Amino acid sequence: MSYSLYIGNKNYSTWSMRPWLVMKHFQIDFTEIMVRFDNFDADSKFKQTILPLNPYGTVPILLDDELVISDSLAICEYLVERHPQLPLWPQNYKIRAKARSVTAKMHSGYSHIRQHLAMNIEAVLPEIGQIKLRDFPILRDEINFLDNHLSSLLAESESPYLFGDFSIADAFYAPMCLRLKGYQIPVSNVLNHYIETICTTEAVAEWIAEALEEKDFVVMDEPYRICR
Amino acid sequence: MSYSLYIGNKNYSTWSMRPWLVMKHFQIDFTEIMVRFDNFDADSKFKQTILPLNPYGTVPILLDDELVISDSLAICEYLVERHPQLPLWPQNYKIRAKARSVTAKMHSGYSHIRQHLAMNIEAVLPEIGQIKLRDFPILRDEINFLDNHLSSLLAESESPYLFGDFSIADAFYAPMCLRLKGYQIPVSNVLNHYIETICTTEAVAEWIAEALEEKDFVVMDEPYRICR
Ligand SMILES: N[C@@H](CCC(=O)N[C@@H](CS)C(=O)NCC(=O)O)C(=O)O
Ligand SMILES: N[C@@H](CCC(=O)N[C@@H](CS)C(=O)NCC(=O)O)C(=O)O
Repeated sequence: MSYSLYIGNKNYSTWSMRPWLVMKHFQIDFTEIMVRFDNFDADSKFKQTILPLNPYGTVPILLDDELVISDSLAICEYLVERHPQLPLWPQNYKIRAKARSVTAKMHSGYSHIRQHLAMNIEAVLPEIGQIKLRDFPILRDEINFLDNHLSSLLAESESPYLFGDFSIADAFYAPMCLRLKGYQIPVSNVLNHYIETICTTEAVAEWIAEALEEKDFVVMDEPYRICR
Repeated sequence: MSYSLYIGNKNYSTWSMRPWLVMKHFQIDFTEIMVRFDNFDADSKFKQTILPLNPYGTVPILLDDELVISDSLAICEYLVERHPQLPLWPQNYKIRAKARSVTAKMHSGYSHIRQHLAMNIEAVLPEIGQIKLRDFPILRDEINFLDNHLSSLLAESESPYLFGDFSIADAFYAPMCLRLKGYQIPVSNVLNHYIETICTTEAVAEWIAEALEEKDFVVMDEPYRICR
């Protein structure tokens, strides 16, 4: 088997980041293919490259030889099956069930955080964070919920990660950490500590370093800046 | 092990329907606990019942003795693990990977269909369907995409279901079929045929019959009617 992972810009692409972190952290070999973000028009270079592989027109995509898997969570579950010796999920089935619930919540929820606090690793945007918190009560509620929820999971966990060792669940929450950090959103000490744990995890640090190396500026992904 | 599945009104609750169908179809025994939908305020009966179990405040929830699993997809993956002898997913790992991608797309996507065409099994709302199609081009695009996508999957499948026998993937698309049917959205013959296949699948027919028995009217879930 030979894996290729299609991803977007490391600076912006939260969904790409998740399976990439899982593969790096657990040392699953792959070829990385970066398809630069653009305006995502039907005739854009991004869509012209991605659509022939994946009808959803999104990254990440995992290719295992000719097999195409076209969603971050489906990719992770595929890797779980193909590498049963690797602890991608927690090993205890009850904790794994909880990890899957928490991961699914990230996969389908937190729409206001995702909408208002677009990931932009190289940017530091504390004023935008303040304005968004001031203007969108529903965003505040979502952040409060996230903070309480992760804090209580971390209090139960016997490690700095959500469910014991670093797992798919942490990979799913890593982009969230980078959003909170980039917009300097005030959060509890427990969550701040988790954000630091995540940012200093080797695979995450590597992604961040490579994001900073990109020095790209994609207008569509920059709602809050006019240039770098 | 002893399962309890918490669900909402069968007439409205698309997320509840998915694991319920899987459990019925594959004859996994469970106790059903229906928590009636209301306005979902923090002090509503619904939230007061659900929140102590599930911090997300949503149904479905699966209880396996004291273990709580709080998302439709996480529940299905849990059942897959606990019942390895049952073909909840397709047995071929490549087809299973595709089924997981398609299921994940339903789990996180199709937001316009979900927003505009709320499931309401007992209602027949063709005019609303027409008005929505007329007024929301993005809804039209999403329906066209869904139609083409499912049709091409069905063309590849060697059965009336998406990936061989009825699987979690079909359970995830069943509520979509009921939306398209209820609003009488014009779709391709292939998709129409799939909708009929789904509606006549025993577990789905049972859900529908029980939805019709409810004879409830929850104002919050009735954007298009003032009474039954
Ligand atoms: N549910 C998908 C979401 C993937 C997704 O939305 N990816 C973004 C980049 S982070 C994308 O490709 N967007 C292109 C577009 O929206 O047209 C997954 O988990 O992989
Ligand atoms: N991602 C969740 C979504 C569950 C969900 O949104 N359920 C709805 C009923 S269909 C609910 O409980 N809503 C309550 C609320 O939104 O407050 C899942 O797949 O289980």
